[in-house]
Amino acid sequence: MAYPASVTLYEVGPRDGLQNETARLPVEAKVRLIQALSACGLSRIEIGSFVRPDWIPQLADTDQVAQRLQKRAGLRYSALVPNRTGLDRAVASGLREVAVFMSSSEAHNQKNTNKSIAESLEHFSAIVPAAKAQGLFVRAYLSTVWGCPYEGEVDPRRALEITQKLRAIGCDEISLGDTIGVGNPLQTRRIVALFLEGGIEASRIALHLHDTNGTALANCLAGMELGITTFDTSVGGMGGCPYAPGAAGNLATEDLASMLEGMGIETGVDLEKLFAAGELAEDLSGRKLPGRRLQAALGRRKPGEARKAAST
Amino acid sequence: MAYPASVTLYEVGPRDGLQNETARLPVEAKVRLIQALSACGLSRIEIGSFVRPDWIPQLADTDQVAQRLQKRAGLRYSALVPNRTGLDRAVASGLREVAVFMSSSEAHNQKNTNKSIAESLEHFSAIVPAAKAQGLFVRAYLSTVWGCPYEGEVDPRRALEITQKLRAIGCDEISLGDTIGVGNPLQTRRIVALFLEGGIEASRIALHLHDTNGTALANCLAGMELGITTFDTSVGGMGGCPYAPGAAGNLATEDLASMLEGMGIETGVDLEKLFAAGELAEDLSGRKLPGRRLQAALGRRKPGEARKAAST
Repeated sequence: MAYPASVTLYEVGPRDGLQNETARLPVEAKVRLIQALSACGLSRIEIGSFVRPDWIPQLADTDQVAQRLQKRAGLRYSALVPNRTGLDRAVASGLREVAVFMSSSEAHNQKNTNKSIAESLEHFSAIVPAAKAQGLFVRAYLSTVWGCPYEGEVDPRRALEITQKLRAIGCDEISLGDTIGVGNPLQTRRIVALFLEGGIEASRIALHLHDTNGTALANCLAGMELGITTFDTSVGGMGGCPYAPGAAGNLATEDLASMLEGMGIETGVDLEKLFAAGELAEDLSGRKLPGRRLQAALGRRKPGEARKAAST
Repeated sequence: MAYPASVTLYEVGPRDGLQNETARLPVEAKVRLIQALSACGLSRIEIGSFVRPDWIPQLADTDQVAQRLQKRAGLRYSALVPNRTGLDRAVASGLREVAVFMSSSEAHNQKNTNKSIAESLEHFSAIVPAAKAQGLFVRAYLSTVWGCPYEGEVDPRRALEITQKLRAIGCDEISLGDTIGVGNPLQTRRIVALFLEGGIEASRIALHLHDTNGTALANCLAGMELGITTFDTSVGGMGGCPYAPGAAGNLATEDLASMLEGMGIETGVDLEKLFAAGELAEDLSGRKLPGRRLQAALGRRKPGEARKAAST
């Protein structure tokens, strides 16, 4: 059993987190949050989305956010782009990485993007080469690989086929999503093994695991056991699950960063600074965030004496 | 990589959960909760504690609770016994399994039991044979194996030595505790491997993993990979962490039962009935319980439309 020596955390809080929060933050607050996250030592941060403002009003000002961010060596910002207009906005804002997105189930892809899977692939076959021609790093999200809220089980061979096509048109990295957090480690192991056998290198795969059912870290472990080294996380677990009000959503950055630090796996992240960023995210979102490690860290800072007798 | 075909969930909610809740329940409510849990198909339930009532007033009426429980084939109730008086009360209440408890760090053992480790072992060397002579199954809790809130790191070789002594005096099963939830899967792997090399069979080991930092399921996975098949869990994650107010405590029964069902590992547990028991536990404790899977299940039952556009 060999775990990787180092792991990259791809921070999605400012995008995937905020787009699922009810709070709408001013540009200033988003910039503060992203700067706090970049101060933690994270090397990749998704800062927003260039989708139509009426689709996700929370992220309508991503251009302004991007323009106000300080560049840092070793840190790459990214944003979602649904189309050529979005790509042009991203480039104009100074971003050097963009992400396209689609699903591995027809029903989710239709609801989420108003396209069939074939239409999404055709659509990307114009955008992705245009992004590559400008020297951008292109990530592709492939959602619902572990299960679809509309279709239920999804055949991972279909997800692999789509991934092979996304790679062929130039996507540098595919982020495989357990969008509704229904995955288990055995399933994760089977999916990752299928992708590796299908010619997708581990270095091209990121896992985007939701913690709806508490299994995200166990799924990360299964992924790491097969050589995966990039995982998407959200500060404080910000974002919730759009399909189950009140339930947890994205895997919390602190949960994975803390587990990896304990295992001696390098992430470059300073946990204390990450807790401070988590506290800021909690203040900005106006609610208690679901991340376990963050709550433990915040709880320990508050007065309170442990019960003394007969615990196990 | 072989996972076990079946796993036993040892339910600690009515004891470890309730003793950490502020709510004090009448006997009737405890009996209702235990009956709801036994209806789920759980085969082992810890119903309370025969410690001095002034230590843990929440569990002062364990005798009455035990006497009111219906016997079921394939279901064994247990309770904590700190001494001979507790053992006698447990037997008089009709229990056929008891649990003694101590820690693998001196400071925690002293604070939790008012004894040194040597004194605890000597103390048990009278109680355990007395329990065995009456045909009882004897579990021993060994706390703080992954770390101590007072001493920090704990040498697992010390925990192994204590375990070997506990086995020698007749304890049937040792429940190794990550009492403060600081463990990670690599550490779990090393601890379990050390115990197996030290002559403790996997079937004699249970893991009692707290979810303070969200790592409990990942630690279970690491344990299962080495053949461990008994895990302690608490309905809804009831219990909290006594060392970090507001943080999660015990691993939630639904979280592990659900993950195992997804992996095709038999537990005998009916998830829907378990969610109903979790909802009851939430009503009785008067707070939102931290279990992820339970919250997802309860959230899905409430009205609420998923956001439609551009999610990953």
